[in-house]
Amino acid sequence: MKLEENIERRNFLRNSGVLAAGLLATPLTGFVQEENFQNADSIYMIGPKEGYSPRVGTLLSTMTMMRAWVVDSVKDLTVEQLDFQIDDQSNSIGAMLWHLAATERYYQLNTFDEMEWGSWSDDIKQEWDLPMGLGDMGREKIKDYDIDFYLMKLSGVRAETEKEFAKRDDDWLMKAEPFFGKQMTNNHCKWFHVCEHESNHNGQIKFIKKRLPS
Amino acid sequence: MKLEENIERRNFLRNSGVLAAGLLATPLTGFVQEENFQNADSIYMIGPKEGYSPRVGTLLSTMTMMRAWVVDSVKDLTVEQLDFQIDDQSNSIGAMLWHLAATERYYQLNTFDEMEWGSWSDDIKQEWDLPMGLGDMGREKIKDYDIDFYLMKLSGVRAETEKEFAKRDDDWLMKAEPFFGKQMTNNHCKWFHVCEHESNHNGQIKFIKKRLPS
Repeated sequence: MKLEENIERRNFLRNSGVLAAGLLATPLTGFVQEENFQNADSIYMIGPKEGYSPRVGTLLSTMTMMRAWVVDSVKDLTVEQLDFQIDDQSNSIGAMLWHLAATERYYQLNTFDEMEWGSWSDDIKQEWDLPMGLGDMGREKIKDYDIDFYLMKLSGVRAETEKEFAKRDDDWLMKAEPFFGKQMTNNHCKWFHVCEHESNHNGQIKFIKKRLPS
Repeated sequence: MKLEENIERRNFLRNSGVLAAGLLATPLTGFVQEENFQNADSIYMIGPKEGYSPRVGTLLSTMTMMRAWVVDSVKDLTVEQLDFQIDDQSNSIGAMLWHLAATERYYQLNTFDEMEWGSWSDDIKQEWDLPMGLGDMGREKIKDYDIDFYLMKLSGVRAETEKEFAKRDDDWLMKAEPFFGKQMTNNHCKWFHVCEHESNHNGQIKFIKKRLPS
């Protein structure tokens, strides 16, 4: 996220104590110059997007914004930082990134291919169960990968999501099955969860980043 | 979230290693009984809601779902647990909850009252700057409150958001100003951020919950 690199903003935030808290909730409004505005291209214009039905495009625009913030959190991390374990029950930042790709892959199978959760083939499980499950196995096996490895996993799965989203209409978003908490859950909800789940882990990623060994 | 209290799900998750990782990404599909379905009332049916314009209602439904998950994370915590500091640069769970309410309050002023970020009155700052800023002051001053205190802050601000959302149409969501990263940012984006920001902190809350002193 470019705003994180803005010196004036950093000074503003440092003075206000917000940067110290590691928060994104405070925007930049005081230091803007007109010529720097980006309108149609802005990831911060949430709404319908060309090539997608209106609500599907709106949903995708939230996912695109969220992903940009996650990538901004991690793009400069070294292999050692991506592998860092803050304690013996933690997940490394690298493992969490791969986990986000795995989550999205499984929701593709569930919502695009209409497969019951967990009913995927052994090949699929072989590829994705490790980052999906994390835990002890994740701590043992997910290491030594650089940031490009994780970003490729994320962007590869996302490209497939975008391709499949483009084929679907807004009614598809309302299609539901019993899912979370025995309650009817529609496709919009499942994909909103894929999106907010990235923020959930980004909160943990930022927590760990502030505590990386120097 | 009711699904967290479901014994079968917990066993399923424990066996799969997913619960150990503290993740919400895996749903319950295998253990559902028809009579337990809730349809129209389900918080997992994201979409237009009565009393709101279609896209505003859809946005609000994501915020309602997210809030339910946050509340589920914290509702049983004691004062001591809400005050717990995992290290000398952390924010307590209680402080993060109040911070979520403060964030929503400031976005109300910015988007409903169209006030430039930070231009609010001293009375408002007096009330909300402490939880908004967190940091050293938050660590010093935000303590000794029980969960009802924080939940009242959250629900009080949310009631105001719902009332104001009901007055607005979908076009209002597209209204934009330069905000995040010098880029045009519309109201939909700002409120999506209020929502995902809850998930961001919920990730940290869950991280800390797993590490509370027993």
